[in-house]
Amino acid sequence: MPRSAWTDDPATLLKVMSGFVLADVDPSSTPGFEGDKDDGEALLTDAGPEIADLQERLYAESREGGLRKVLLVLQAMDTAGKGGVIRHVVGAIDPQGVKVHGFKKPTPEELEHDFLWRIRKQLPPAGVVGVFDRSHYEDVLIARVRGLAPAEELERRYDAIVAFENELVADDTTVIKVMLHLSAAEQKERLAERLDRADKHWKYNPGDLDERALWPEYQRAYQLALERTATEAAPWYVVPADRKWYARIAVQRLLLDALRRLDPQWPAADFDVEAEKKRLAQS
Amino acid sequence: MPRSAWTDDPATLLKVMSGFVLADVDPSSTPGFEGDKDDGEALLTDAGPEIADLQERLYAESREGGLRKVLLVLQAMDTAGKGGVIRHVVGAIDPQGVKVHGFKKPTPEELEHDFLWRIRKQLPPAGVVGVFDRSHYEDVLIARVRGLAPAEELERRYDAIVAFENELVADDTTVIKVMLHLSAAEQKERLAERLDRADKHWKYNPGDLDERALWPEYQRAYQLALERTATEAAPWYVVPADRKWYARIAVQRLLLDALRRLDPQWPAADFDVEAEKKRLAQS
Repeated sequence: MPRSAWTDDPATLLKVMSGFVLADVDPSSTPGFEGDKDDGEALLTDAGPEIADLQERLYAESREGGLRKVLLVLQAMDTAGKGGVIRHVVGAIDPQGVKVHGFKKPTPEELEHDFLWRIRKQLPPAGVVGVFDRSHYEDVLIARVRGLAPAEELERRYDAIVAFENELVADDTTVIKVMLHLSAAEQKERLAERLDRADKHWKYNPGDLDERALWPEYQRAYQLALERTATEAAPWYVVPADRKWYARIAVQRLLLDALRRLDPQWPAADFDVEAEKKRLAQS
Repeated sequence: MPRSAWTDDPATLLKVMSGFVLADVDPSSTPGFEGDKDDGEALLTDAGPEIADLQERLYAESREGGLRKVLLVLQAMDTAGKGGVIRHVVGAIDPQGVKVHGFKKPTPEELEHDFLWRIRKQLPPAGVVGVFDRSHYEDVLIARVRGLAPAEELERRYDAIVAFENELVADDTTVIKVMLHLSAAEQKERLAERLDRADKHWKYNPGDLDERALWPEYQRAYQLALERTATEAAPWYVVPADRKWYARIAVQRLLLDALRRLDPQWPAADFDVEAEKKRLAQS
C-alpha cells in the first residue's frame, strides 16, 4: 500500500478551464498530493496492475466489436519528462495494448499534406492505448514560435484541431491531453546533467539551447494553444513537472481515471460454452 | 539473484540445425535449465533491466545514425503462450523502443499483394525491437494445411522467405525466429481453462478446435517450414512451451544474447561538450 495517497483528484485540479493562466501554475507544486517522492514512487508501482488490467479488458471488448480506445497526448518543453512518463506509466501496460508514436520534424512528404495527415496515420486502433510523444500541437507551438506557417494558417489550425479531436471523440476515443509544465530553471539543471554524463550526451542537441532562448515565446504559444483547444470533449491538463515523480503519478491517475470511467467488462461468450466443452473433451 | 541459472546456453540447445526433427523435441522439457518454476520466475524478473538497458543503448546508437534493429518472430499453435512472452519478456523494455504487431487473417487488400507486402510494412525501425505475433510463416503454415494457396506458390514462398530474411539481415536486422512448441495434451488443458473462466471466454474461438483437429498436419507444416527456412543468417529456435515459465526465460535469453552480441554503446557527443556547458550557463 502507498504510504500516502491523493487528497484531491488531480483531474479536477489540473484541468484547463475557462480563464486559465499558465503563468499562474507553479511547476514545482504537487497539487492534490501531500506525500513525498518515496510515497509517489510507491503509488506509481502500486497502480500499475490496475491500469494493465483495465487495458486488457478494453482490448477484450474490442475483440467482440467494441470500438473504444484511449489517446494520451504529451506535450512539453525539452527535458520535461515525456519519456519517463511513457517508460514508467505506459510501461505497466502489456506492449500488445499500447501504440506509442513520437512525432519528429515533419518529412518533406508530410509537409506536402495537411498537418493532420501524419497524425491520423498514428491513431490507436480499438482496444489500444495510443500515446503521442509530441503531436499536432507542434503545428501551433514551434510553428508559431518559429514562424513556420503564415499567421492565417496558424489561426485556422486551432479550429481544425478542435474539429479533429471532436471527430476522434465521436469515434469512441477518450482523448487526454497533457502539458508537462517545467520551469526554465529546472530545465537548465536537466540539460546540465545531460552534458555532464557521457551516457546522456545522445539526448542533447545544441539546438535545444536555441529553443530554450525562446522560452517566453513558447510559454505564450502554449497559453494560446491551451485557450483555443481545451474543450469538454478533449480536455487539457497542465501537470507541474519539476518533480518527475509527481508528473508520473499525475499522468498515471489521469489515465487510470479515464479507464475507470470506460469501465470495460469481459465480453460474454458469443458461443455455446457447454457445447464447446463437449467438443474439446472429444478432441 | 536468481536461485538457479542456465547450465547451458539455450541458444545452442534450441537452435534448429541440419537434420532437425520437431517430433523429437519434448514440449515439457526445460533444456539448459535445472531450476523450477520459482527459479525461472526469479530469473525472468532479474534479467529484465539488462534487456531494457541494452535496448536503450541500441536506440541511442540509432539517434546518431546507427541502423541496427532486432526482429523477434513468434510462431506457435493457439494457447502456446505468445502473448505471455510478449507481456513478460518484451514488457521489460521501454514502450518507446518496442514495435509489436499481431498478424491476423489477411484483409482483402492484403490478399491483392504478395504475401510479404503486409509484413514489410511492420518492420521495426533502427534502434527498436520489433515483435511479430504470427508472421509471414502463416503463409506456409495455415496456408499449407488449409490449402489457401496452390502447391507451386507454397513452394515458391520458402525461397522467398529466405531471400526476404537475408535482405533484413543485410539491412542490419538481427532476426530471431521462435517456435513455441506445445503438446496437444497441454493445449487441451489450456483451452479447457479458457472455457472454464468467464474472463477468458473472449480468448476462445470455436474455430480453435477446427485447427486443433489438424494438429498432425500443422506439425508437418512446421517441420517443413523449419527445414526450409532455418538459415545461419536468420536461425530458428524451437522452444518447449508446455511450461510457460520456461518458454519465457528461454525467449528472454535468446533476446538477451542477441542484444549482448550487438553490444551497443552510448554514442560519443557530436558537439563540443565544454562549449555547450558555457552556452547553457549563459542561458
